[in-house]
Amino acid sequence: MTERTFHVDGRLVPESEATVNIRDRGFLYGDGVFETLRVYDGEIFEWEAHADRLARSLATLDFEETMPPVTDLRQRVLDTVAANEFADAYARLSMTRGVQPGKLTPESRVDPTITVIVSELPRGGTDGDDVWDGPATLRTVETRRIPSEALPADAKTHNYLNGTLARLDLQESDADEAIMLDTDGNVTEGATSNLFFVDAGQLKTPSTDLDVLPGITRDVVLDLAREEGFPVETGQYSLAEVREADEAFVTNTTWEVRPVTAVDGHDVEAGPMTKLLAKLFDEYVERTHY
Amino acid sequence: MTERTFHVDGRLVPESEATVNIRDRGFLYGDGVFETLRVYDGEIFEWEAHADRLARSLATLDFEETMPPVTDLRQRVLDTVAANEFADAYARLSMTRGVQPGKLTPESRVDPTITVIVSELPRGGTDGDDVWDGPATLRTVETRRIPSEALPADAKTHNYLNGTLARLDLQESDADEAIMLDTDGNVTEGATSNLFFVDAGQLKTPSTDLDVLPGITRDVVLDLAREEGFPVETGQYSLAEVREADEAFVTNTTWEVRPVTAVDGHDVEAGPMTKLLAKLFDEYVERTHY
Repeated sequence: MTERTFHVDGRLVPESEATVNIRDRGFLYGDGVFETLRVYDGEIFEWEAHADRLARSLATLDFEETMPPVTDLRQRVLDTVAANEFADAYARLSMTRGVQPGKLTPESRVDPTITVIVSELPRGGTDGDDVWDGPATLRTVETRRIPSEALPADAKTHNYLNGTLARLDLQESDADEAIMLDTDGNVTEGATSNLFFVDAGQLKTPSTDLDVLPGITRDVVLDLAREEGFPVETGQYSLAEVREADEAFVTNTTWEVRPVTAVDGHDVEAGPMTKLLAKLFDEYVERTHY
Repeated sequence: MTERTFHVDGRLVPESEATVNIRDRGFLYGDGVFETLRVYDGEIFEWEAHADRLARSLATLDFEETMPPVTDLRQRVLDTVAANEFADAYARLSMTRGVQPGKLTPESRVDPTITVIVSELPRGGTDGDDVWDGPATLRTVETRRIPSEALPADAKTHNYLNGTLARLDLQESDADEAIMLDTDGNVTEGATSNLFFVDAGQLKTPSTDLDVLPGITRDVVLDLAREEGFPVETGQYSLAEVREADEAFVTNTTWEVRPVTAVDGHDVEAGPMTKLLAKLFDEYVERTHY
């Protein structure tokens, strides 16, 4: 594999030279935010929604005033994708608080570190291939989702050990995605995905009033379902409700709509609503990108 | 100021060249652990306790088998301190899970990234100067401590946004350290320090059964207090108990024993027990290092 090209602080650099100083607060404290982006045919999927969420994450960390114009950020991603001659790709756009003189307390003067990592991914849309090999197998893990009063769930930050520990909990199981509960025992989401399930013809997903990241793909799927006239509910659900679901699927930017085949050893069908929503999603990508 | 020398993956390098790849999991996810060390007269204070805690933090993140022999880690710190010609210093020793091919789920084969950052600090012991300018002013913040069921409080990791947000909560106040409560409202600790208070002649500090980092300086102070015959209690305390304390102080590796002058606007005295423990601490440092 030839070396990829990444983007660091305004410059395209070979992957092996794409570095940050060890005093960067992104490295010291995970003091940074990011977005996982999907590029279809050279264009970023739902760019405005991602840029909005990045701005909100930065506001939570209190350095939103250092965010460059969104057209500038978009161009960094597109330049990186183009430099690698990718048409369909994954991109990770990240902004950290950079190097500061002091210790933990952030200084108000911020020179952020802005980086872009890219990987090639299969084409999306109706002629696309899924990035996953098969349906997801879910298992509920011991690690609970961090409550928003400790770290706001709607900020997508470099503090990703909570999800990492959830994935480590899956070792020695056959599952490849976690179901994370909040500290009250409500179902929230996966380590890197939002969870949907179908109960008596109704599409349900945990509310963002809970400790749930407001996924961009989650929003697109909710819109598509509503447009199709499906009954949709966002709320507070127990694990029993998910285990007894007629269908279930998980969503994120790279997986798109990924069916679930089992929850804690209970078989779940890849039923008609999941299949239709996956098809509607592919058509939406096709219509907006190809 | 001349450029410092740091240590990255076995090599001494100038500070400006001390970098990690942006694919390092320490940068992407804060997937790493660290220890803040105090070097007095060229020797690391309580090195064995720090090495033990580093090993426990690594075990929580499940890559403890990659920890080099403790003598090797110790030497990296001492080499870095010596390269800068520091006698008395602060050092941050860090181990991350390094670069891995996959996404969030950690792979079992780990090539850790090991780094050392150092700064010169004043001499400790009975002839030493404190690193802080004056007593600490504490204020209770909105940000709650992350519960251990989401991220174990006894692991010292690069996921330090919780403490960063606590410090940001102090903006526009006169306080320089936070009091963080757990999600049940119990007092836990500061953003970077353990909290002690004196109530009717008894020394009290929140128990590590709560979401509290087991501080090395905290342990030394508890030992010194017990040796001195002070009544000591570790337990579960409300904010009201701390606010009404006769004395209070905070501890960490660089602050050592730092008196508290106010809690949420309530004056607290730098009383006799605080002064005696600070003196006993200085004598302990003197006895073991100079």
